[in-house]
Amino acid sequence: MSEFNTDLPSIRKVQGYTKDKNSVEIKLLTNDLLLGTIIWQDPNCICLQDPNNLQILIWRHSIAFIRPK
Amino acid sequence: MSEFNTDLPSIRKVQGYTKDKNSVEIKLLTNDLLLGTIIWQDPNCICLQDPNNLQILIWRHSIAFIRPK
Amino acid sequence: MSEFNTDLPSIRKVQGYTKDKNSVEIKLLTNDLLLGTIIWQDPNCICLQDPNNLQILIWRHSIAFIRPK
Amino acid sequence: MSEFNTDLPSIRKVQGYTKDKNSVEIKLLTNDLLLGTIIWQDPNCICLQDPNNLQILIWRHSIAFIRPK
Amino acid sequence: MSEFNTDLPSIRKVQGYTKDKNSVEIKLLTNDLLLGTIIWQDPNCICLQDPNNLQILIWRHSIAFIRPK
Amino acid sequence: MSEFNTDLPSIRKVQGYTKDKNSVEIKLLTNDLLLGTIIWQDPNCICLQDPNNLQILIWRHSIAFIRPK
Repeated sequence: MSEFNTDLPSIRKVQGYTKDKNSVEIKLLTNDLLLGTIIWQDPNCICLQDPNNLQILIWRHSIAFIRPK
Repeated sequence: MSEFNTDLPSIRKVQGYTKDKNSVEIKLLTNDLLLGTIIWQDPNCICLQDPNNLQILIWRHSIAFIRPK
Repeated sequence: MSEFNTDLPSIRKVQGYTKDKNSVEIKLLTNDLLLGTIIWQDPNCICLQDPNNLQILIWRHSIAFIRPK
Repeated sequence: MSEFNTDLPSIRKVQGYTKDKNSVEIKLLTNDLLLGTIIWQDPNCICLQDPNNLQILIWRHSIAFIRPK
Repeated sequence: MSEFNTDLPSIRKVQGYTKDKNSVEIKLLTNDLLLGTIIWQDPNCICLQDPNNLQILIWRHSIAFIRPK
Repeated sequence: MSEFNTDLPSIRKVQGYTKDKNSVEIKLLTNDLLLGTIIWQDPNCICLQDPNNLQILIWRHSIAFIRPK
């Protein structure tokens, strides 16, 4: 059921966060809660820039939810 | 086996919750229990509006169950 | 390997529980153990009615096992 | 990569346990360790009969390993 | 993205461990750390022989990593 | 949605870490945090060389995130 189609609301929501450089929290299945801004997404991953400008490559399959901070 | 077909009972159940603005609880594989109303669903995600009007983008693969609150 | 084919023993077993209104326990990957009767199944979910007549929409990917109670 | 092909060693190993009624332990991703004999397998599940003759329908996606007891 | 193609480095690495009867540690998503030698692999499973000569059928989807011991 | 296409930013990011022999941290769904340099990737796995020159074969499905160390 997973699809990387830029017409889908879920993909567009993440595009919006990227374009607007919104601070977001990403909760992972490990229970880590990562804070930062999204730099890009592709079919496998979302790349998050954290407050120390470190780029974190997050696998989609490990994401539980994303919310604005 | 996962399918996003609007004739399926599981997809229609979530459509019903969305249309009727029912309060629901969504239990995740992280053991988080999120409360809110569902705004939309697509093949990847369900978007939940929480009691503070924050929009939470929840990945389907992380959902254990949904029940009315 | 997951398939929703009503000839498969696993799908028929759940159909049997549904038709006979057997009390079942569903163990989830979250370690929740849910009790109730199964009302329907589709390719994504199993819908369980709990002892308070609450309908719980359970995602198949989160199920560890089902056993009669 | 998951396949239900009766020529595969993993499918045949489980067929062997079933035919010979070997006692096995099945470790799940929930960390449950279930003991019993395997009655059948299909593409979705393995059905285990426990020492109390209760039939437990175990989803393949939740299995970590199987070993003889 | 999972593939069982004997030209892939990951499949060949496991073939190497099998042929050379190297002692390996297999870490599972349950956090179990299993020790032994790999006897065979197929698209679903890796079969490990533990120090007591017990054969453990490990599902690929539950493997986090393999390293030489 | 998972794809092993060398044009994708996520695959190229890992290629960059490999080529440049950057120290990275790989966080797994088991909550292990592995440190090392990436030697190769294929559709199933990423091979990490740890500080003791031990090669660890990490399954992609178990990866939560990768970040430079």
